[in-house]
Amino acid sequence: MNTFGRNFRITTFGESHGSALGVVIDGCPAGMELSAGDIQPALDRRRPGTSFLTSGRAEKDVIGILSGVFEGRTTGAPVAMIINNEDVRSEDYEALRDVYRPGHADFTYHAKYGIRDHRGGGRSSGRETVARVAAGAVAMKILQGRGIAIRGRILEVHGKTTQEEIEKEILTAKEAGDSVGGIAEIVATGCPAGLGDPVFGKLDAAIAGAMMGIGAVKGVEIGDGFFAAKKFGSENNDQMTKDGFLSNHAGGILGGVSTGQDIVVRIAVKPTPSIAKAQKTRDVHGNVVDISVKGRHDPCIVPRIVPVAEAMLALVLADSLFEQEKYR
Amino acid sequence: MNTFGRNFRITTFGESHGSALGVVIDGCPAGMELSAGDIQPALDRRRPGTSFLTSGRAEKDVIGILSGVFEGRTTGAPVAMIINNEDVRSEDYEALRDVYRPGHADFTYHAKYGIRDHRGGGRSSGRETVARVAAGAVAMKILQGRGIAIRGRILEVHGKTTQEEIEKEILTAKEAGDSVGGIAEIVATGCPAGLGDPVFGKLDAAIAGAMMGIGAVKGVEIGDGFFAAKKFGSENNDQMTKDGFLSNHAGGILGGVSTGQDIVVRIAVKPTPSIAKAQKTRDVHGNVVDISVKGRHDPCIVPRIVPVAEAMLALVLADSLFEQEKYR
Amino acid sequence: MNTFGRNFRITTFGESHGSALGVVIDGCPAGMELSAGDIQPALDRRRPGTSFLTSGRAEKDVIGILSGVFEGRTTGAPVAMIINNEDVRSEDYEALRDVYRPGHADFTYHAKYGIRDHRGGGRSSGRETVARVAAGAVAMKILQGRGIAIRGRILEVHGKTTQEEIEKEILTAKEAGDSVGGIAEIVATGCPAGLGDPVFGKLDAAIAGAMMGIGAVKGVEIGDGFFAAKKFGSENNDQMTKDGFLSNHAGGILGGVSTGQDIVVRIAVKPTPSIAKAQKTRDVHGNVVDISVKGRHDPCIVPRIVPVAEAMLALVLADSLFEQEKYR
Amino acid sequence: MNTFGRNFRITTFGESHGSALGVVIDGCPAGMELSAGDIQPALDRRRPGTSFLTSGRAEKDVIGILSGVFEGRTTGAPVAMIINNEDVRSEDYEALRDVYRPGHADFTYHAKYGIRDHRGGGRSSGRETVARVAAGAVAMKILQGRGIAIRGRILEVHGKTTQEEIEKEILTAKEAGDSVGGIAEIVATGCPAGLGDPVFGKLDAAIAGAMMGIGAVKGVEIGDGFFAAKKFGSENNDQMTKDGFLSNHAGGILGGVSTGQDIVVRIAVKPTPSIAKAQKTRDVHGNVVDISVKGRHDPCIVPRIVPVAEAMLALVLADSLFEQEKYR
Repeated sequence: MNTFGRNFRITTFGESHGSALGVVIDGCPAGMELSAGDIQPALDRRRPGTSFLTSGRAEKDVIGILSGVFEGRTTGAPVAMIINNEDVRSEDYEALRDVYRPGHADFTYHAKYGIRDHRGGGRSSGRETVARVAAGAVAMKILQGRGIAIRGRILEVHGKTTQEEIEKEILTAKEAGDSVGGIAEIVATGCPAGLGDPVFGKLDAAIAGAMMGIGAVKGVEIGDGFFAAKKFGSENNDQMTKDGFLSNHAGGILGGVSTGQDIVVRIAVKPTPSIAKAQKTRDVHGNVVDISVKGRHDPCIVPRIVPVAEAMLALVLADSLFEQEKYR
Repeated sequence: MNTFGRNFRITTFGESHGSALGVVIDGCPAGMELSAGDIQPALDRRRPGTSFLTSGRAEKDVIGILSGVFEGRTTGAPVAMIINNEDVRSEDYEALRDVYRPGHADFTYHAKYGIRDHRGGGRSSGRETVARVAAGAVAMKILQGRGIAIRGRILEVHGKTTQEEIEKEILTAKEAGDSVGGIAEIVATGCPAGLGDPVFGKLDAAIAGAMMGIGAVKGVEIGDGFFAAKKFGSENNDQMTKDGFLSNHAGGILGGVSTGQDIVVRIAVKPTPSIAKAQKTRDVHGNVVDISVKGRHDPCIVPRIVPVAEAMLALVLADSLFEQEKYR
Repeated sequence: MNTFGRNFRITTFGESHGSALGVVIDGCPAGMELSAGDIQPALDRRRPGTSFLTSGRAEKDVIGILSGVFEGRTTGAPVAMIINNEDVRSEDYEALRDVYRPGHADFTYHAKYGIRDHRGGGRSSGRETVARVAAGAVAMKILQGRGIAIRGRILEVHGKTTQEEIEKEILTAKEAGDSVGGIAEIVATGCPAGLGDPVFGKLDAAIAGAMMGIGAVKGVEIGDGFFAAKKFGSENNDQMTKDGFLSNHAGGILGGVSTGQDIVVRIAVKPTPSIAKAQKTRDVHGNVVDISVKGRHDPCIVPRIVPVAEAMLALVLADSLFEQEKYR
Repeated sequence: MNTFGRNFRITTFGESHGSALGVVIDGCPAGMELSAGDIQPALDRRRPGTSFLTSGRAEKDVIGILSGVFEGRTTGAPVAMIINNEDVRSEDYEALRDVYRPGHADFTYHAKYGIRDHRGGGRSSGRETVARVAAGAVAMKILQGRGIAIRGRILEVHGKTTQEEIEKEILTAKEAGDSVGGIAEIVATGCPAGLGDPVFGKLDAAIAGAMMGIGAVKGVEIGDGFFAAKKFGSENNDQMTKDGFLSNHAGGILGGVSTGQDIVVRIAVKPTPSIAKAQKTRDVHGNVVDISVKGRHDPCIVPRIVPVAEAMLALVLADSLFEQEKYR
């Protein structure tokens, strides 16, 4: 299933080492100004090779709009966008052709499909998210037009919370041939009350599915999340006065529908599975081997997941907005 | 959106104080033995009034199968099931007609729909889950036929972990006119490798959406979840030997696809929002009022959410199974 | 697949000789006045036993609304409706348990599902349409609120076009133990321009699918339909002046999108397959038998298909309206 | 809505005079051999400029596979394919920028979207079908692997049935600055019994929707179609003996499910609306104008619709096959 959304639908395609990645947006309103300039900055934030802390793969990630835009405006036709792969070094992966890298989708894709594009993880690569970010940028533009903003940040990496500690932690892991995970928070401000579609299209359910569907994400919480489990009802309820809510423990969502407050989402990101440290694994023939994953990998994927999580939240909100506006 | 699933689809209906709740299952295989006896035990586990720790509402929750079964076997036609509401005391809620109960969907439903069935929360009530549990029982039977079992348990309530502490904690809260939250874990054993549909139908994404869509759930994690954020990659990766994986930090899912190991899910449940303790809120006219929610409420909803979470996991797995079997 | 529509979604259930039939409407706008009185008249038009020309099965088809309506208004929750089967004579069908009736779904359902509810055709019975008509009545009410009306009529039966000829033709067939088919036309007036969703949700495509999905319908045409195949472009094009179109050969749809003119649909209905005349067929064991289908059957199904076709057109238009209004 | 199908899903994009058209196939089985060579012949059959009877637009329609294929086999990842537009003469259409061509989607797209890509009809152009044919070729390969073949042919053009008459008729129309319509028949052989999904995913309903969704198609019939309306039941029913059916008036579908016989579909195609003959129309400003549509147009579109209709039937059947195989 490579389509996401019901009203603002995106369909993505492409692999890490294929010729191109792309996305088709279906359900984008007509008459909206749209150009590559609206999308490129989001891709630039996500792309690798921009810091010593991230992968050295040097992709320019230049977006091309193939359809759906005429004389600078959307026409209601599907907006197809493409990003060509340029810095592909498939030979780096030749040694991994038959080996299941621990923590990756190698084993499961093989179990599922009986065939596997081993080059950089193929479709299961984080590179796939470039298409989501491109689509998310279009969603973001729609949200901005309604006064909604989305902003993500790193809360902690390997338990550390300051920028200095975090950078040090990542470097230490990198030098040890290891990697670290962390937690990020994504907040949407300016959302109207009323978004979300009970009982199986609840806003928090949609957000949780969207976030957990990002590779490396292993946990999602809304508002106080897991901490709510340790509280009394009298502490956790958000009381109201005539000016609105007195607190936002709920993270902006009650009964699966937005309250008009900030929507607050946190995600747990696992440490990058590709590490140089030797690990035990097996190959497709059943042989046990020691593996040391070389190549160009991020020692911590949290910084690069932030723009992806922002994009996914934008996609969920745009979709919910159109669902809600349907009945106005 | 009251439909859940793509291949094994359920559509639910009904409100807390309406005449009946029900579910239509579409995509149930033909030729399967099915009777009320397969479903009633699951409803009995979920239903209230069974302990001093839960709501006193005395619903028998007798299931009726309206269609889709002929001479004891499914025919491929949709299986509709109905549960009549019997112990309805709408008058209990008359005082709440215009008041937004804190922590409930009252305000958001009103914002969304402009109208609200105030009787027991209407459609936003936990009572709605009776239909999910009925459908889940059918899914469970399908899974059992393939050797898959699902088992949930309470991990902690208000930070306490033993049965004795938990009961004491709930009683203390109840006596104080308050409520408590907790954490539950749901595990599926016997799942084959290969379930889940990249990149937007990943198994963990589907599970996260299903769990977060249960009222009162504020966090979801798979495998080590948020704890993974604090680890090194070398600790978190599940290494393999020829006999399989050496650990299951991933919770049985890699790249959104099942590994064949146990699928491990944890959910954070907030404290029941209906409490007797006075709280500030407002009514639909903008007046600020003090509210003390009386009536028959669970001081802790975690025990009753366990069978619902099991049902949702069963529904996700049945759906994934049929998706996967499609291409065999 | 027992769900129809994307925005105004209906899910139906029930069989000819089961305990009840019903429908769940999901996506009905909140705040709309709705009662059984809005739906019953449509059921009464469709139901059998009203004339010597139709089946003698005496069903009252009393509609019950189970959910989604509170104090006379829809709440945004799913509207479930139920019709109990009362005049069930399953024993009439005992002789047909193992025999495939010619022209019916008996053979194909058995081939598909490996099991078959032989009582009156089970799920494949025309009785299933009672649920569609109930849902269609709700759609119709929505359309009426926007000035859209739908009206169907019989164009011809067995090649005859006047009321007198048609009645005579049906009676003659009935007396001969035979049946006759015919053609009906359904017209929607008052539709705004702009309905329909290129390229795979075109209005004419949705209508064609909806009509062909009615049992016994074997052909669908829009506007001039098959006659357009015999014309020059200069005859078939609808020219425009400043007051609008000069003709409506297109039947109110161009490029899959409504023009604002009348939407004109015609359907070909085959003769009822249940006839008393002896026919060759086989049973599930492969034995060839002569069959004479007794029981209470319509010698011509066209009159009873008209309200069903009206309902399906209403469902398509309501769905298209919400799709279009989404972006306003 | 630019996605078609539930199990074998295609999403198309692109306009007549944009930079490229394309399609993403989602749900294509993994491990299947696939290359451009499987698709190009179908595009060559559809493409213009191959005969004096068709449009002079000289597109080579070279297919490029962007994703989903690795070392010659599908991987389960989405298969994206692209066709660049080369022979684009947008200037031909400059005079039509503000004018609604009769019989085209110009007026309705403008009404729907408030903006219009006037170049060759933009998204409403028949050129959009190149993407359907590419996807259809993949579906066809899947069907062939199961012994199913699809073959279309022209039955008549402007009422004429022989090849000689038809060519003459088209030429005469062309010389008169006019166009003609016709009827085509598409037959699928080798289909197993059991395809189609009651009650809203019936095979005939899916086919009717698919066919009517092809531009210029105004009528669809299955089996005897409209002729069935003129028959007695005793003539129309397909009787059975132990070797199977004695006739195929039903066109291979009963109760919306395939019988195992040939599936027979006929479509009515209207005359090409682009004609040189002067016609009355209006422009976006409300001015009435005389229009003579010049440029490179097919005087009869029937021959070029045949491969498109074959492709759509292949897509429906592949989708139905996977739906049915899900439960095996």
